[in-house]
Amino acid sequence: MSHPLFDRHQALLLHAVEAVATRGHWSPYPEVPSTKAYGETANSDGKAAFDARIGQPFALPGQPGAGLTGAEQSPYGFSLGITYPRVEPDALIAAASAAATSWRRAGPQAWTGVALEILHRLNRRSFELGYATMHTTGQSFVMAFQAGGPHAQDRGLEAVACAWQQMALVPATSLWEKPQGKNAPLRMEKRYSIVPRGVALVIGCCTFPTWNSYPGLFASLTTGNTVIVKPHPGAILPLALTVEIARAVLHEGGFDPNVVTLAAHAADEAMPAALALHPEVKLIDFTGSAANGDWLAAHARQAQVYLEKAGVNQVIIESTDDLAGMARNLAFSLTLYSGQMCTAPQNLYIPAGGIASEQGHVDFDGVVQAIVAAIAALTDDPAKAVDVTGAIQNAGVLARLDNARSLGDIVLDSRVLVHPQFPDAQIRTPLLLKVDSRAEDIFLHEQFGPIAFVVATTDCAHALALASKAAREQGALTLSLYTRDTAFAEQVRDVAEECGVALSINLTSGVFVNQSAAFSDFHGTGANPAANAALTDAAFVANRFRVVQTRTHA
Amino acid sequence: MSHPLFDRHQALLLHAVEAVATRGHWSPYPEVPSTKAYGETANSDGKAAFDARIGQPFALPGQPGAGLTGAEQSPYGFSLGITYPRVEPDALIAAASAAATSWRRAGPQAWTGVALEILHRLNRRSFELGYATMHTTGQSFVMAFQAGGPHAQDRGLEAVACAWQQMALVPATSLWEKPQGKNAPLRMEKRYSIVPRGVALVIGCCTFPTWNSYPGLFASLTTGNTVIVKPHPGAILPLALTVEIARAVLHEGGFDPNVVTLAAHAADEAMPAALALHPEVKLIDFTGSAANGDWLAAHARQAQVYLEKAGVNQVIIESTDDLAGMARNLAFSLTLYSGQMCTAPQNLYIPAGGIASEQGHVDFDGVVQAIVAAIAALTDDPAKAVDVTGAIQNAGVLARLDNARSLGDIVLDSRVLVHPQFPDAQIRTPLLLKVDSRAEDIFLHEQFGPIAFVVATTDCAHALALASKAAREQGALTLSLYTRDTAFAEQVRDVAEECGVALSINLTSGVFVNQSAAFSDFHGTGANPAANAALTDAAFVANRFRVVQTRTHA
Repeated sequence: MSHPLFDRHQALLLHAVEAVATRGHWSPYPEVPSTKAYGETANSDGKAAFDARIGQPFALPGQPGAGLTGAEQSPYGFSLGITYPRVEPDALIAAASAAATSWRRAGPQAWTGVALEILHRLNRRSFELGYATMHTTGQSFVMAFQAGGPHAQDRGLEAVACAWQQMALVPATSLWEKPQGKNAPLRMEKRYSIVPRGVALVIGCCTFPTWNSYPGLFASLTTGNTVIVKPHPGAILPLALTVEIARAVLHEGGFDPNVVTLAAHAADEAMPAALALHPEVKLIDFTGSAANGDWLAAHARQAQVYLEKAGVNQVIIESTDDLAGMARNLAFSLTLYSGQMCTAPQNLYIPAGGIASEQGHVDFDGVVQAIVAAIAALTDDPAKAVDVTGAIQNAGVLARLDNARSLGDIVLDSRVLVHPQFPDAQIRTPLLLKVDSRAEDIFLHEQFGPIAFVVATTDCAHALALASKAAREQGALTLSLYTRDTAFAEQVRDVAEECGVALSINLTSGVFVNQSAAFSDFHGTGANPAANAALTDAAFVANRFRVVQTRTHA
Repeated sequence: MSHPLFDRHQALLLHAVEAVATRGHWSPYPEVPSTKAYGETANSDGKAAFDARIGQPFALPGQPGAGLTGAEQSPYGFSLGITYPRVEPDALIAAASAAATSWRRAGPQAWTGVALEILHRLNRRSFELGYATMHTTGQSFVMAFQAGGPHAQDRGLEAVACAWQQMALVPATSLWEKPQGKNAPLRMEKRYSIVPRGVALVIGCCTFPTWNSYPGLFASLTTGNTVIVKPHPGAILPLALTVEIARAVLHEGGFDPNVVTLAAHAADEAMPAALALHPEVKLIDFTGSAANGDWLAAHARQAQVYLEKAGVNQVIIESTDDLAGMARNLAFSLTLYSGQMCTAPQNLYIPAGGIASEQGHVDFDGVVQAIVAAIAALTDDPAKAVDVTGAIQNAGVLARLDNARSLGDIVLDSRVLVHPQFPDAQIRTPLLLKVDSRAEDIFLHEQFGPIAFVVATTDCAHALALASKAAREQGALTLSLYTRDTAFAEQVRDVAEECGVALSINLTSGVFVNQSAAFSDFHGTGANPAANAALTDAAFVANRFRVVQTRTHA
């Protein structure tokens, strides 16, 4: 069955499928918040749209709701004052289930067309989404625009492309003709229908509400499931806008808008658990803490659960041809969004005896000082630094930072920066601690936030053993290596493959270990405790639908 | 990395991938046990090879073992007297883990080439596998040859093709080039490595030891995992032969044979649970009871678990254009291998008021009698009938059959047949019982064996409601429908899709609801309690490997 929205976006879809297959650089959504890409008034329109939400109820007509909820605080120092429909789990599930049958019958082209139209409209609203992301996550505006807008849309489109690619592997029909010697062949007509799993639940986080949610949201929607979006109580608005847009597209397409619903809730409510354990919920995508993720895996047994949890990301420094480039690159990775990224490096392993470099031998302290100096240079001017650091998302990160100061020898203390526009924002530069390599109980645990450890290792094998242990036991999304020794690089690659962590080698310029590019980089591998799935591969999408066949004599 | 075994079988692989994509009739393995296909002496050689195993230890040199185990009984009335290496779980896991690293490094072409060579050799040994399957499962020789030999090999090849197809979607490398305005673009070289999950465990059943095990075995092996094959204690030999062949191919290819090992055990041992719960075991394929399958899903939480369990398969009779053809077809489906198939129909729903047919109206009893007469005709001559019925696999089926006689009104009693060659074999014709449509506690539960129920329904909607309920609550692998009403057929298809059961419509000739053809029919859907996976689709293979990437500046 064709569908007008599928036809409208088919060319884009084919590009996206091709991009996933070749994994070069590609994106249809401009990442620069420019007037050229988005129009002269896009910024002011987006800002005005965001401002108009402040202090207002956010209505989702037609979605079940009983009362209001919402207490978002901008990390830039003010209360959003937006309220959202409060939902009862059973009523929401009932609405999602009621929408399911006609949505199932619409078929893959309709599911895919609707998903692509939603992404198209999200892209046009990137400035509004950018301000919404900035004032919930604490990211600087440019980062919030990119990560909350086009980069998240890229990840959503990637999920649509992967899902479509997998559904398209199943032919709609076949003619099965089995020779019977001299007799007429047996002939069967077969029909293969893609059917969804049921209700999908997407559980967002407070640091990347759209970027981390869109893959699951769009993978489930594109495979015919109904989707309940449950934002983190601290970052509801970006996902509420997403749901609003999705519901508008569904409504205009003649579908029940309750195919996509929002489950906003207060921080202390048990509602999310009730949703996650509901027998109708068959798919869950979760980004968050290891404790909550492990609870879901243990208890939400009726569902297929895709988890991204905590991890310990590491940097192995063996040698370098560009000490300054390495230091600048690491400084940016450590400072970007104050380390509040699941991909940010935490542990830097440096040989106690120092390293070889283009400047000759550099001792341990010399390497550390190069990084310290680079961080200082990057954060020297608060007005510029805040565009990198953003703001601290929540008090938990601040408390962790304070506690961390006693965990080792401070080689670079965290500084308080004052944002020129938002003086109430909590802004911190990275804290760098030197810890003993035997203090595994300290540095082999995630310290989410602007906290990093330098560890003096006896040699590179020691560093590799620590990195491997952390990845296997604590999980890791990224591993970074600096070396001029190609044999050692191959050895690290082999270990990275064994413990399932993505490896970046000798990053010295404008690519950073904590950034992954949709259509090219897999985010996570699913092969260590940090995540049981990757964004976005076949395993992430193929189990969101099933094939049911009908056969009859031809 | 190319591999000679991959090169040797690449053309076959591409055929298989094409077959999976188009889903017409295809098989490279001749299903007729003919001299033309397998050679003049294939039957006598296979029989002699089987006979030579009787009463002997089955050696697997190089595999850990401590003592001997094995007490297989041929359902045709004699003890096989074969013993197999008894294994300690930790020693076996250690051997599998020790084999893992070099196997992982060999890469997709080696994994796939080895799998294809194993299948090639299995095919040449189809007669031996046929006798081994016959004398463990109780299937007649021709069925055992087909289901234990070429049809199982088809399913194995299908899994290899699906796994290869998914691995091939990931490019080995990419060049990522991001424009930077007037500056030189950022360029990254990326490498994407397919890595296995770990140790895979394949748990076989006693009725289709190879057919039900090969998909998981070959899917896991082809994606680089090491595989422990744990046969049912009642049907070890077919899988022991399989493991022996796999180990020979591995050894000749320069790989550690412990990439594939056998975990034979006695019926009362706890060893299988220890294997299933071992932290190194990351993949489990299971065919067997709902109780054991549910236990695995609940406890083997460290692993991805693929389950095929029990179900209630049903036939809805609304009307027919070919009463005799329908009756013959159903009679064969009910009689084949004495209903000891997970796909065999159990419940026949017939309107109390009768049906329309090409002979005009036929009342309820008339429909039942047509089926009864067809079963009687099929089983009238014991010498011919035993080629359809085979023998009862185990005493549990016999006891269930005896107990079942009191569950309803007997419309056709089960008869004892004497096999002309094997007088000690336990052979039974189907028992057909009429039960009240309100007796759901009786007929909405699986009665594995030659036991079927006829149920008078008030109308077709009633039949459809019962079928839907059974599929949702008890699970079902097949649903059969007889109707001349295309609108009703569409309605049933919609319900079948909603409850995830494969539908066959108006089977009257040489295709039977309990048979599924590899490369064309999906076996199971994964969408109801009978199974959480289908043989063989993307979801069945895509999560058996992960992708780990390495990137560096180009």
